[in-house]
Amino acid sequence: MRQLHYFPGNANLAPHMLLEEIGLPYELLLVDRDNNAHRSAAYRQLNPNGLIPVLIDGDLVLYESAAICLHLADCHPEAALAPVVGTQARAHFYKWLIHLTNTVQPEMITYFYPERMADDGAAIAQVKAHAEARLAQMFDLIEDALASGGPYLLGAQYSAVDPYLFMLARWSRMMARPARGRPHLGRYLDMLAQRPAIARAFAGEGIAAPYC
Amino acid sequence: MRQLHYFPGNANLAPHMLLEEIGLPYELLLVDRDNNAHRSAAYRQLNPNGLIPVLIDGDLVLYESAAICLHLADCHPEAALAPVVGTQARAHFYKWLIHLTNTVQPEMITYFYPERMADDGAAIAQVKAHAEARLAQMFDLIEDALASGGPYLLGAQYSAVDPYLFMLARWSRMMARPARGRPHLGRYLDMLAQRPAIARAFAGEGIAAPYC
Repeated sequence: MRQLHYFPGNANLAPHMLLEEIGLPYELLLVDRDNNAHRSAAYRQLNPNGLIPVLIDGDLVLYESAAICLHLADCHPEAALAPVVGTQARAHFYKWLIHLTNTVQPEMITYFYPERMADDGAAIAQVKAHAEARLAQMFDLIEDALASGGPYLLGAQYSAVDPYLFMLARWSRMMARPARGRPHLGRYLDMLAQRPAIARAFAGEGIAAPYC
Repeated sequence: MRQLHYFPGNANLAPHMLLEEIGLPYELLLVDRDNNAHRSAAYRQLNPNGLIPVLIDGDLVLYESAAICLHLADCHPEAALAPVVGTQARAHFYKWLIHLTNTVQPEMITYFYPERMADDGAAIAQVKAHAEARLAQMFDLIEDALASGGPYLLGAQYSAVDPYLFMLARWSRMMARPARGRPHLGRYLDMLAQRPAIARAFAGEGIAAPYC
């Protein structure tokens, strides 16, 4: 049985939602982040970066949330979580997943941990403010994409990029311009929140609606 | 014929190296970055983020360098640029590609464009110094991975993650602790520099050895 090392609301959310879509048994293993368990030698054996989540799948130990999503989608074509390999739709799926994980997600990390990027309080405040402004621009571009397409990020097909965006959009909920404040993104997030697999994943992490 | 919108040494390097591995005809289209052509309305029709590269493949318009690499690998299984879908090796391939593009690459962007992250000169200098220190730690972890494996990032099999790492390692060449200064990474980069497809890609962008 697969095991997902998680902490409520962390980057495990997207893989967790996919495990619920797939519907096979899995186990959630809480990483005791409050006591820095993710920095321990034992956890760094699983992920040398000390980050959450890690997926255990037989003798495969896998980290990087987007990689876990790709792996789960590939192992379960019957769940239709990604377009068929070699198609144009697959290329656009990669484009969105990569964009979310290499552009939106790092800016989120800067927003939440600006002290990693500077020394004194004034500089740290500047870094946080810049990250928030840049995230607003990123969500504006995603809004444009949904306005000219939809209902899902790839158009008609629900895929793993949707829970990935949902997870990141949730992280903006305390910002001055949260993702949900844009009309198309707002309706998109409302639609995804109704999806049973997504609701079950949140329940499994002890998170109540509204999620975003 | 495929077309790659590029600027010498930019994130087009990795896809360019894969196009050379594949060996089919393609065309390089220079983006006149010095005159901000990547910010033009025409270019933003191709990539709304205004970033280089963009691949044109028939009627597919694709951006995000790592997504282009995945697409090219999937379209050319005969070139063996990625492990077979559904295998553990494929999962590790995703893990490395995602890690390179969502951890190392954004930190590089912060290092090269710290003024995007803060306002005043002192804060900008702090951001740049932090990025350089964090990049050194990231290359240390990659050094550890090569020390316990190799010769390629996935072990015995050359794959698209190797040119991706080569591209990022090159970008560190002016830093106090460039990637090449580590013993295993240094040998790895020397080995890759000898690869004909990599040398041809550099030549095509007008970049002479040593590359890193």
